[in-house]
Amino acid sequence: MFVDTTFRDGHQSLIATRMTTEDILGIIEAVDELGFRALEVWGGATFDVCVRYLNEDPWERIRLVKAKLKNSKTQMLLRGQNLVGYRHYADDVVELFVRKAVENGVEIVRIFDALNDVRNLEKSIEVALKCGAHVQGAISYTVSPVHTVEYFVNYAGELVERGVHSLCIKDMAGLLTPKAAGELVSELKKRYGLPVEVHSHATAGLGELAYITAFQAGADVIDTAFSPFAMATSQPAFETFYHVLSEYVDLPKIDWKKVDSIVRYLWEVRKKYEAYDVKMVTIDHRIIVSQVPGGMYSNLVKQLSEQKMLDKLDEVLEEIPRVRKDLGYPPLVTPTSQIVGVQAVLNVMTGERYAKVTREVKDYVKGLYGKPPAPIDPELVKKILGDEKPIEGRPADYLEPELENRKREIGLLAQSDEDLLIYAILGEVGRQYLRRRYENSLYVDWKLAEEFEGGYPV
Amino acid sequence: MFVDTTFRDGHQSLIATRMTTEDILGIIEAVDELGFRALEVWGGATFDVCVRYLNEDPWERIRLVKAKLKNSKTQMLLRGQNLVGYRHYADDVVELFVRKAVENGVEIVRIFDALNDVRNLEKSIEVALKCGAHVQGAISYTVSPVHTVEYFVNYAGELVERGVHSLCIKDMAGLLTPKAAGELVSELKKRYGLPVEVHSHATAGLGELAYITAFQAGADVIDTAFSPFAMATSQPAFETFYHVLSEYVDLPKIDWKKVDSIVRYLWEVRKKYEAYDVKMVTIDHRIIVSQVPGGMYSNLVKQLSEQKMLDKLDEVLEEIPRVRKDLGYPPLVTPTSQIVGVQAVLNVMTGERYAKVTREVKDYVKGLYGKPPAPIDPELVKKILGDEKPIEGRPADYLEPELENRKREIGLLAQSDEDLLIYAILGEVGRQYLRRRYENSLYVDWKLAEEFEGGYPV
Ligand SMILES: [Co+2]
Ligand SMILES: [Co+2]
Repeated sequence: MFVDTTFRDGHQSLIATRMTTEDILGIIEAVDELGFRALEVWGGATFDVCVRYLNEDPWERIRLVKAKLKNSKTQMLLRGQNLVGYRHYADDVVELFVRKAVENGVEIVRIFDALNDVRNLEKSIEVALKCGAHVQGAISYTVSPVHTVEYFVNYAGELVERGVHSLCIKDMAGLLTPKAAGELVSELKKRYGLPVEVHSHATAGLGELAYITAFQAGADVIDTAFSPFAMATSQPAFETFYHVLSEYVDLPKIDWKKVDSIVRYLWEVRKKYEAYDVKMVTIDHRIIVSQVPGGMYSNLVKQLSEQKMLDKLDEVLEEIPRVRKDLGYPPLVTPTSQIVGVQAVLNVMTGERYAKVTREVKDYVKGLYGKPPAPIDPELVKKILGDEKPIEGRPADYLEPELENRKREIGLLAQSDEDLLIYAILGEVGRQYLRRRYENSLYVDWKLAEEFEGGYPV
Repeated sequence: MFVDTTFRDGHQSLIATRMTTEDILGIIEAVDELGFRALEVWGGATFDVCVRYLNEDPWERIRLVKAKLKNSKTQMLLRGQNLVGYRHYADDVVELFVRKAVENGVEIVRIFDALNDVRNLEKSIEVALKCGAHVQGAISYTVSPVHTVEYFVNYAGELVERGVHSLCIKDMAGLLTPKAAGELVSELKKRYGLPVEVHSHATAGLGELAYITAFQAGADVIDTAFSPFAMATSQPAFETFYHVLSEYVDLPKIDWKKVDSIVRYLWEVRKKYEAYDVKMVTIDHRIIVSQVPGGMYSNLVKQLSEQKMLDKLDEVLEEIPRVRKDLGYPPLVTPTSQIVGVQAVLNVMTGERYAKVTREVKDYVKGLYGKPPAPIDPELVKKILGDEKPIEGRPADYLEPELENRKREIGLLAQSDEDLLIYAILGEVGRQYLRRRYENSLYVDWKLAEEFEGGYPV
């Protein structure tokens, strides 16, 4: 019934993913004892943040967590061909990464693509299946005239054809209304008979309402986090939903004292990272009022302020839906939210729409991100690409294998496939981490050596 | 469909009722234009706080607000025989207060009693009806073995017999689950056919879920606040529910730009009173885990700390439900939450249950607060009252008329019935306010006089 996201989306949404492996290990066994179906503890931004900011080995995190779990399965979030990075990787990187993720302890792989282009998931689904993982195909939920129930159900069909074991409605921006959730879940259940999970966010107050109607419509699992890492831009709270749903169905008895002690522990963790805390005390009405997600809105305000153009905010807010329409209604999530946002600002700034376009818009129009949900305005394609033609096939087919080059570049700093992947996925950031680790190991050796030369104390 | 509570429960729940009349007047017309059925702007704690902390005349507030409204009705919250104070007042005070409230601009009077003893509402219902107000009978919602759907429906029947125009499920502690909400609303609608409103709080994440199932079950109105004064210990947000419900029913079109400007204004107001802000960033799990409301929990912790007894917290938390049961399951809201909480602490502290009892528990057992939801443990009645007998009748019947005494005591400081009521209800706090106002008026006169003596400038 419940998947816990405290250790992935929970801290990713509320404290910039700053929870350390130590923070997690201090409580994960207690959480495991409560009997969640799975704990999402890996993937998403956690891989990057471990390496970039925490000086931690993400592979070690999943191994240590896995070793502690007796009841719940480990779950990771995988961005399809983007893996846990921010661009498409070649298939050899995808193959190695997914294999290593499963080998190191991931049992459920939730895979999604921001554009819902199944060709961006194909490879990782295939590999995850081959490795024996439970593969969950996630639908990126968004709202637009083309994103109808039928659209999502058809897309789910493509995932089902690829052999996924379960489906997830992944509403990363908290847009899913209770009405839409009910309709979508019931249609998915009817058509495919697979387990359906719902993942949403409380950002605009919609996520928790969607969970109720999704449950009424037959959803099998909802994603929640413990209250210190729930609500606001994170998931709805476990405590609330356990209490609420236990009035409808028989749930296994829960030890509320244990819940209370987990909550107290997690509050201490949250307080430690106050500097990163979103500190949001109510819903964000902007997603409802202007159809622009809160994070994107804040970025816009910052960007326009820096350029002393804050007076253009309303114009830009009106331009965003137009750009989104021109580009075939991509969901406004990373990276498309930036692509659309920056282009909208350019359109307003220059006074002529698409007089300038960013490199990213050009790549997007060329098809390098995948197939947009709706066709791009043909005039715009012509204006931007000129005589160039958009690519026809699967974006990753245009990428040369990468691993051999990466291996050569990183040399001895990578002592394992896992190390190699840190570099292959995160590039320079990965290399710096590996170098720091190498230098620290030397330092430790020197210390040992000094001690040795000085002789042991008697 | 919507009643807005921003200017009553919203700021009462989140910033200790500190919003001033000026804050309200600056935005009330814009809010009025959105077409709410009613705006709850008066009563509850606002009367007390105006006088005690804001040095404001609450009567002037309702007059000024009423004068600005063209579309929405003004609503107040009345605590039955407690009016807007903290004890039972004699019927002559109730009569004058309700009459003056309506005369000064209140159109809808929502009346409740914490114990759901209809005898504590009778008088105010009768007077409000006589004055031509819309009278709403509110059921104080709580959870206990005796608080079944049948119990609440029967109680509603007593309200209906008294002639109320509509019913409200008033869940002051945010305990109403979606399942209970659906069942209760549908039963109330079926039995009485009157409009049913639902008032809840987002404290534990339950309120917003209850609204959805209440709506599905046919509730006519839900109470919401604008997002800056919504969520946490306040009501769910208007923006969320307007958006969500407009997918199910045709709602009048709304100007989202106007909503946005209201929200921006209210954010500035909220920031002004940061010192009083509850600053709650997620749900409060304690109500779910320990069945003790968050406010009561915080009071306990404070009280036990002061007495260096914090190590007894768990014992006290276990004693609370027992005391509540002994006392016939009163809802844990003001004033019964204090009565139960303090007695539980005493029971733990002394090591012998009810070895000491507070004055309030004695009065409660004597029946002075009204009839408890379930009979009080007879052993306990005997232990506490000895040979004394509990009162049989309506508590207010045991109160002598008060107004003549109050009038004599306050003398010339009260220049109107409204002034008299400030003193009659708030006692010494009211007198101090009236005296300050009198002294200020003298001060102004002196200034004028000085100017006059000095002659007018040419
Ligand atoms: Co998410
Ligand atoms: Co309330």
